[in-house]
Amino acid sequence: MDLRSDRIKNMKESATLAMAAKARELKQQGINVISLSLGEPDFKTPNYINEGAKKAIDSGKYFSYPPVNGYLDLREAISKKFKDENGLNYGPDQIVLSNGAKQSIANIFLAILNPGDEVVVYAPYWVTYPALVELAEGKAVVIKGGIEDDFKATAQQLKEAITPKTKAVIFSSPCNPTGSVFLKDELEAMADVLRDHPEIVIIADEIYEKINFTGDHASIGTLEGMQDRTVTVNGFSKGYAMTGWRVGYIGAPLWLAKAANKIQGQLTSANCSIAQRAAYTALTEASDSTEKMAEAYHKRRTLVYDLLKEIPGLEVNMPGGAFYFFPNVSNFFGKTANGSVINNAEDLCMYLLDEAKVSLVTGDAFGDPECIRLSYAASEEELKTAISSMKSALAKIS
Amino acid sequence: MDLRSDRIKNMKESATLAMAAKARELKQQGINVISLSLGEPDFKTPNYINEGAKKAIDSGKYFSYPPVNGYLDLREAISKKFKDENGLNYGPDQIVLSNGAKQSIANIFLAILNPGDEVVVYAPYWVTYPALVELAEGKAVVIKGGIEDDFKATAQQLKEAITPKTKAVIFSSPCNPTGSVFLKDELEAMADVLRDHPEIVIIADEIYEKINFTGDHASIGTLEGMQDRTVTVNGFSKGYAMTGWRVGYIGAPLWLAKAANKIQGQLTSANCSIAQRAAYTALTEASDSTEKMAEAYHKRRTLVYDLLKEIPGLEVNMPGGAFYFFPNVSNFFGKTANGSVINNAEDLCMYLLDEAKVSLVTGDAFGDPECIRLSYAASEEELKTAISSMKSALAKIS
Repeated sequence: MDLRSDRIKNMKESATLAMAAKARELKQQGINVISLSLGEPDFKTPNYINEGAKKAIDSGKYFSYPPVNGYLDLREAISKKFKDENGLNYGPDQIVLSNGAKQSIANIFLAILNPGDEVVVYAPYWVTYPALVELAEGKAVVIKGGIEDDFKATAQQLKEAITPKTKAVIFSSPCNPTGSVFLKDELEAMADVLRDHPEIVIIADEIYEKINFTGDHASIGTLEGMQDRTVTVNGFSKGYAMTGWRVGYIGAPLWLAKAANKIQGQLTSANCSIAQRAAYTALTEASDSTEKMAEAYHKRRTLVYDLLKEIPGLEVNMPGGAFYFFPNVSNFFGKTANGSVINNAEDLCMYLLDEAKVSLVTGDAFGDPECIRLSYAASEEELKTAISSMKSALAKIS
Repeated sequence: MDLRSDRIKNMKESATLAMAAKARELKQQGINVISLSLGEPDFKTPNYINEGAKKAIDSGKYFSYPPVNGYLDLREAISKKFKDENGLNYGPDQIVLSNGAKQSIANIFLAILNPGDEVVVYAPYWVTYPALVELAEGKAVVIKGGIEDDFKATAQQLKEAITPKTKAVIFSSPCNPTGSVFLKDELEAMADVLRDHPEIVIIADEIYEKINFTGDHASIGTLEGMQDRTVTVNGFSKGYAMTGWRVGYIGAPLWLAKAANKIQGQLTSANCSIAQRAAYTALTEASDSTEKMAEAYHKRRTLVYDLLKEIPGLEVNMPGGAFYFFPNVSNFFGKTANGSVINNAEDLCMYLLDEAKVSLVTGDAFGDPECIRLSYAASEEELKTAISSMKSALAKIS
């Protein structure tokens, strides 16, 4: 008898599990697989942050439960960061710290969605968005931009997707998985549509904010009328190489921050006290480590772009931020390699793992089955080796 | 317009919020309030654990995402702990680490409950149980033991509460809020009822395991036929004074561990990497700090019992574990203090805060409106002062 709930039976298995199992198998055989599949920095947490955490441990002040929404001084520092860096006005009571930005987004959907409520999700999307919408019994309404649009769905598409059941719209910029960045005029067009629908909550995931090569990072919350209805999601994982610490946060309208706090108080409570102190150090002590990491990503982006461009059949665009390329590989579909037909992006990923010993992620998981995601959070040497192997392997497809 | 979901509108406000606000107000006026309302140790995290965390930071090995269910070596250490200390057989793949045991319990209910499914909840209960059952759209069916039963509902009550819709039963031992401990023969009687209902999942919350003055701690999972259907919940907060670190875990049947892992992967992912290393140190390095803390609680229990016993009108039993007393205060209901009638436990708590400057928690929140919860995770001096003030204040009620 299967005692599991329907919500878990209906929850999609991660599309990357088979790939990951295969990669593990090869590694166990002693074969050197280069992983370009990970959604996290290859840099270690900067030292000043580690020292901040150690100092907090030694202080003996942070062993007990933090407030559910996080320490006040950290929320004050985030409030200041929102104001100084993003031009956003969220007071400390409008900020909720969480065990990762995933928890932040779960809190929001659980706080606003009733069964059947709709959320417009910009695709390609982070896999977690539609999964969490469904967990909260909502319905994800996907609007999609292809590589020809720099993977950005248009304001017109947004307009057409909105129904009386639309409760929220969610997008990330810079985007995971495409690296695309919504520029200020594109956000303005989006805001223009949303001004006609004041009851829709806007969720802007800016977790890749610090890895943005387009110049200024723009926040939709700064546009006219948007501040009071926009949840800005951010965290320390990407900009400060702190994935393992698990510190995400939101700035939100007060009613929604309170609701998120209430949900989190029941579901899990605060995240780790010492991780919060590490985050406090990250924000309040001077360091150029974030800029240095961004520079390294920038340099790698050029390197990878130049190398990928030379691969026949691969369609590549230049991402504005994050540390991903999202090439369209549909030219290879229907062709044959090693006696097997490549039917889709997953087949191609499995072939590249087998033949080139490079692990990637199929675009299916992100709402675009014609693409694959390549993370360049890896060393230049690994990137060169991996892409050269991919090139040889792809040349064998005919 | 209220854009919040029904699930958040229906979620109960914490019964302790008004109390907490009042206590804060008094403190801001410079009045010294002794807090006996907290559900956490007053001890700091033992030093060897802090040092383990700092070493993990310095190693530079734990900056990236841990596996969703936690580091393998920590799960191995927990598997060994279950076997050596509790006689329970959970392999490392049956263990899921979480951001606190609250998250562990949320995962389970989300993984097994469909709308309308019932969970038998032993009362007095930890407030979070029914709240999480409801969040997962289940229905909490409460069975209650009064102070005359040492707050332990009987096997007969369990039997009568089970219906075809019962999916799970949950209890804590040692119990928060009562400190009651289910002894082996009581668990055996419980198991005997449950053997007739093999489809019911048993959730045994043993987070206060290390603070048990009855001698051996008994786990229902060790009884015949129970291992394969029992989820044992535990964590590091109470036994190792690590509340701020947020490390809880379950041992569960494999299918349920997998389901919990899947839910957690979508909702929040792993908890903090460094907190997991602290927990690993807690389990694997020799120390007598846990025993020393338990001894201190034991000594305070006797002290507090003797003092409370002397207060006329208060009905007190001797708790077997945890660090709480749960006196019945119904003798004071309907009487008058400072010109106001004490109608219920909440009124009494407010009066004691006002008059004795002691903050406590009303039993309502725990499913028993005739009681109040007093935490003795405080220094002996604070306990003496607080209880003496309570005695004087209660003597004024007539």
